[in-house]
Amino acid sequence: MIVILKPGTSQKEIDTLSDSLIKQGVQVNPVIGTDLIILGLVGDTSKIDPTQIEANRNVTKVMHVAEPFKKANKMFHPKPTVIEVNGQKIGGDSRLALMAGPCSVESEEQIVGIAQEVKKMGANFLRGGAFKPRTSPYAFQGLQYEGLELLMEAREKTELPIVTEIMSPYDIETFVEKVDIIQVGARNMQNFELLKELGRTSKPILLKRGLSATIEEWLMSAEYIMSGGNEKIILCERGIRTFETYTRNTLDLSAIPAVKNLSHLPVVVDPSHATGKWWMVEPLARAAVAVGSDGLIIEVHNDPANALCDGQQSIKPHVFGELMEQIKLIAKAVGREV
Amino acid sequence: MIVILKPGTSQKEIDTLSDSLIKQGVQVNPVIGTDLIILGLVGDTSKIDPTQIEANRNVTKVMHVAEPFKKANKMFHPKPTVIEVNGQKIGGDSRLALMAGPCSVESEEQIVGIAQEVKKMGANFLRGGAFKPRTSPYAFQGLQYEGLELLMEAREKTELPIVTEIMSPYDIETFVEKVDIIQVGARNMQNFELLKELGRTSKPILLKRGLSATIEEWLMSAEYIMSGGNEKIILCERGIRTFETYTRNTLDLSAIPAVKNLSHLPVVVDPSHATGKWWMVEPLARAAVAVGSDGLIIEVHNDPANALCDGQQSIKPHVFGELMEQIKLIAKAVGREV
Amino acid sequence: MIVILKPGTSQKEIDTLSDSLIKQGVQVNPVIGTDLIILGLVGDTSKIDPTQIEANRNVTKVMHVAEPFKKANKMFHPKPTVIEVNGQKIGGDSRLALMAGPCSVESEEQIVGIAQEVKKMGANFLRGGAFKPRTSPYAFQGLQYEGLELLMEAREKTELPIVTEIMSPYDIETFVEKVDIIQVGARNMQNFELLKELGRTSKPILLKRGLSATIEEWLMSAEYIMSGGNEKIILCERGIRTFETYTRNTLDLSAIPAVKNLSHLPVVVDPSHATGKWWMVEPLARAAVAVGSDGLIIEVHNDPANALCDGQQSIKPHVFGELMEQIKLIAKAVGREV
Amino acid sequence: MIVILKPGTSQKEIDTLSDSLIKQGVQVNPVIGTDLIILGLVGDTSKIDPTQIEANRNVTKVMHVAEPFKKANKMFHPKPTVIEVNGQKIGGDSRLALMAGPCSVESEEQIVGIAQEVKKMGANFLRGGAFKPRTSPYAFQGLQYEGLELLMEAREKTELPIVTEIMSPYDIETFVEKVDIIQVGARNMQNFELLKELGRTSKPILLKRGLSATIEEWLMSAEYIMSGGNEKIILCERGIRTFETYTRNTLDLSAIPAVKNLSHLPVVVDPSHATGKWWMVEPLARAAVAVGSDGLIIEVHNDPANALCDGQQSIKPHVFGELMEQIKLIAKAVGREV
Repeated sequence: MIVILKPGTSQKEIDTLSDSLIKQGVQVNPVIGTDLIILGLVGDTSKIDPTQIEANRNVTKVMHVAEPFKKANKMFHPKPTVIEVNGQKIGGDSRLALMAGPCSVESEEQIVGIAQEVKKMGANFLRGGAFKPRTSPYAFQGLQYEGLELLMEAREKTELPIVTEIMSPYDIETFVEKVDIIQVGARNMQNFELLKELGRTSKPILLKRGLSATIEEWLMSAEYIMSGGNEKIILCERGIRTFETYTRNTLDLSAIPAVKNLSHLPVVVDPSHATGKWWMVEPLARAAVAVGSDGLIIEVHNDPANALCDGQQSIKPHVFGELMEQIKLIAKAVGREV
Repeated sequence: MIVILKPGTSQKEIDTLSDSLIKQGVQVNPVIGTDLIILGLVGDTSKIDPTQIEANRNVTKVMHVAEPFKKANKMFHPKPTVIEVNGQKIGGDSRLALMAGPCSVESEEQIVGIAQEVKKMGANFLRGGAFKPRTSPYAFQGLQYEGLELLMEAREKTELPIVTEIMSPYDIETFVEKVDIIQVGARNMQNFELLKELGRTSKPILLKRGLSATIEEWLMSAEYIMSGGNEKIILCERGIRTFETYTRNTLDLSAIPAVKNLSHLPVVVDPSHATGKWWMVEPLARAAVAVGSDGLIIEVHNDPANALCDGQQSIKPHVFGELMEQIKLIAKAVGREV
Repeated sequence: MIVILKPGTSQKEIDTLSDSLIKQGVQVNPVIGTDLIILGLVGDTSKIDPTQIEANRNVTKVMHVAEPFKKANKMFHPKPTVIEVNGQKIGGDSRLALMAGPCSVESEEQIVGIAQEVKKMGANFLRGGAFKPRTSPYAFQGLQYEGLELLMEAREKTELPIVTEIMSPYDIETFVEKVDIIQVGARNMQNFELLKELGRTSKPILLKRGLSATIEEWLMSAEYIMSGGNEKIILCERGIRTFETYTRNTLDLSAIPAVKNLSHLPVVVDPSHATGKWWMVEPLARAAVAVGSDGLIIEVHNDPANALCDGQQSIKPHVFGELMEQIKLIAKAVGREV
Repeated sequence: MIVILKPGTSQKEIDTLSDSLIKQGVQVNPVIGTDLIILGLVGDTSKIDPTQIEANRNVTKVMHVAEPFKKANKMFHPKPTVIEVNGQKIGGDSRLALMAGPCSVESEEQIVGIAQEVKKMGANFLRGGAFKPRTSPYAFQGLQYEGLELLMEAREKTELPIVTEIMSPYDIETFVEKVDIIQVGARNMQNFELLKELGRTSKPILLKRGLSATIEEWLMSAEYIMSGGNEKIILCERGIRTFETYTRNTLDLSAIPAVKNLSHLPVVVDPSHATGKWWMVEPLARAAVAVGSDGLIIEVHNDPANALCDGQQSIKPHVFGELMEQIKLIAKAVGREV
């Protein structure tokens, strides 16, 4: 950690601050020049709160140098984490995780039908929303518990592990029992109470990046879950909020090599929610694989125009099939398999 | 609602879409030109999901014209809402709501001491965090239930109503019993499960704007609570996330006249969290009153350099006192009282 | 164009506005419901200034439906534009344009050496800065006219066409004479005087997207040049400014399919400036090709640690060579050639 | 300047880097811990290019500690700069600079009429566009040289100094001769060639902040002009680009105290362009004065609905008059005069 002081800070003030830091268990190395006074803190700085140091009126800025996350940090865990879900693996050099399915579970016929189609075309996970976070309280909120049952039925018929979003801590037990990967949506990425409780389970968690979350904050949310004991985190980039309005959000594909550089956790990409446009899903899915993603999560619907939600970003099964063919070639170029 | 179709859409396709919309209970008025085909939907469009229409491959764009919120909408409720809390009023032309106190409750001495000081200087509400949403799982998480007890003690001694943040739906009953205004933090603005449950209480809610929430999404979150039956919402602007890094967030003061134009709900401003810098609190608090805010929520700490959190953005009681003097003059210029 | 009026606007006010619009040569179709009053304008709306209509106090919003650009618009020019530069082609299904070279031209040895190396590895254009837009007036501003001469020498030795940035309208004649593709930098994307003058030349222009330019504004800047008579525009996505600070800017790869959908102009990607990190160039270059870019522009330097600028984002020639191998496979997956 | 190295960098590599830095004339102080290796650079670091150091593969990050601007820096020039324009003063504790007038100069009658009205109501400068930067090449581009003549006429009749925007370096001589304050628009904030040439004049420059410019970049653009010899810079905050679309841009009022903390230059606020909505001008103008701005620049038009541009953000003269009354009270609260 580095503390930058205002030029002109007196030796006495420097000493007082240094002493208080030394008491917190670190070694303080001052570098003093005319227009530069810094204190380099060496040792275990993890307990030191930078905002507290910044409250000192002589301090200009405090920077942490070591990343603030530990369990998610590649430095202390250089080997990529591989997560196993009902025989499927995600991360490392496993084959790509291809999660496909409708925005919302709507009926048995719909979810089983789509599951069978996407499986045939190469998907190895089934996604589908039972509980839906909607901006409007008046919009369709999902089939909820009934949706979970239908997902389980689709799993039984296809053997695809199921991924679905949790919205309330009250439902954790039910999800642990019925679901294979529990998804935390972008809007709940910093719902710390939910994260803490999920940390006490041993289910794989798909953690979506918040709409305005930095990469560091996203990894800190993973750290919340991991610090509770559950290290099975799959990160998911799904677009960030920017000034551009042509797409719903801006898919940040730079986040993939960034995460690979900072962490050992697997990371997948959701091109459907990022763009909000079905005709952009294909090119961005290809790009996601080319950039090094460990997988994709894609909305597929048999009848997008009558989907109960997000039809505008869903592709039809046959388009998903064509995409899988393109993905195969690209995966090969980056040393991965489909 | 307006549906914009691709130029060249055939009459048959227009008819099919129109019919499906008419079945949803609206009247469809087409406007057809060479490079413009629009359908103007007249009637109750609140049940129509725009993303579903956008899934039609002939549709370029769907726009709602009427605001998607109803209970929060000024159009249907032109008189400003005034919320009463233990004898204090917020909104309309009531005197300004001046909420002050430490980031975190730390001890009885601290919270009672600060409460007494800020009251003397003009504050009419006490703020203080018991449950703290922290980016890092390793940072101080607040005194929690003990913090609530200390806040109640400070209330007993000063008669200031207390405002504090809730983080988990499990705590709603406790908060309803012990707290005067329940704060929903920026990170939980779209924690829809929490909003729904708060909608079933009758406590005033201070709803902070999410870091990347549009004004419309913020009002939709208010609508979530209101649609459950609780209409006592106080909005709180606390800065949005932008590219500028000199301040922690960018305080969006335009949001105040925007909210006043769209809604009848009261809105206050938090200059402390927005800027993250104690020396910016004063000027931005003045600006907030000048722009028409119904109040302020400000971090005040007797010893910022030793605060357990966010000391860098806390002002000392005597600075708060000076600010109150400036505020008095500005409030007068905009027809308000302190 | 669509004009949305406030609910409650009187028939007389609607008529007055309609009449003034009809006088501007368009047909006005009103759609009137209780909470929806819109005027659909049919005909040539290109001369109508939406901000002027918005000045009418009964108007809530004005939206253009047709894109405001014409010459750049795919609708009126469905075939992709292919630009020929000294025998090399860019756009359509031509082989990928691979532009490589140092941030700054530094010496004859440096630029000729790099040019020969990148050519050998597959580059078909040489990039190199002679005039450098630097945030600081105290930073190295480029070799300027001498740099142009050195670029010409490198071209003579390698036959690679040269791409370099113009900063002042005074230099247009010189650039037209000496350079093959004139680059307009991100900071000058809305330097309208420069654009107008470039519109009077017949040189190919590489138009970089501004740091905070929407896709529509970017295409409007292309339109500025095209409306002057020069239709040889190559668009270049180079990252937009967002809240994320891990990368210098956020590469917006969604912009590639968006541009392909809206315009017939070719578009290339600059992963070096977008990320500001050399180790991100490879994965993002791969992703750019996978998403459908017509080419890449990449900083390559033989000795990044001693480069006079932007060494942190330059890759070495042998890394460029490896990248070319990966690109070949990915290009094939999307039906392109290297 | 601080250089942060990767943990594990060898002593030999540290020495090599240190030596190369020492050769550039600075003293290097290493702080070495297990997970922290930093080099503190003491001395004149202004010639050292951080991106060049970052190109070293052992370097994680380079931070400048001293601000990169000097002439604009308050540290070396603590007294606020006061700029005199035809007897009017801007900055320090001078009375507020109140610049008002139409977006575009349209006719003699219009500009003289508005000038007389705003003067009567308290304006002490006349603004008006002769050359207009328009997103579309097909939109009205201003009366240009004729517009300058009309502005001069209005000045003759009212004695108000005139502020108008320059778009091309070719016009500098004309502007120096005819205009009192030369405005550099947001889109040209980093048109470095224009800035350099303006640095060679001695005219006051109103430098608008770019739509996505950080405060530091904005001050660096001021530094460009100042480094050429012209230190008469008036900064102008006019809104930044964010995700919020309700307003055209987001007025960043935090920038005012930030600039006051970093620089001695005066700074004014343009609420008209920031919001793009006439009914937001009043509250935000009040807030700008309350936050500590040295003045305002406001669009006033006698007939907004027929203005040739930006009518939607122009207020009528009588509204400007009412605003002036409110401003008087607020100015007093912050120790300023109108």
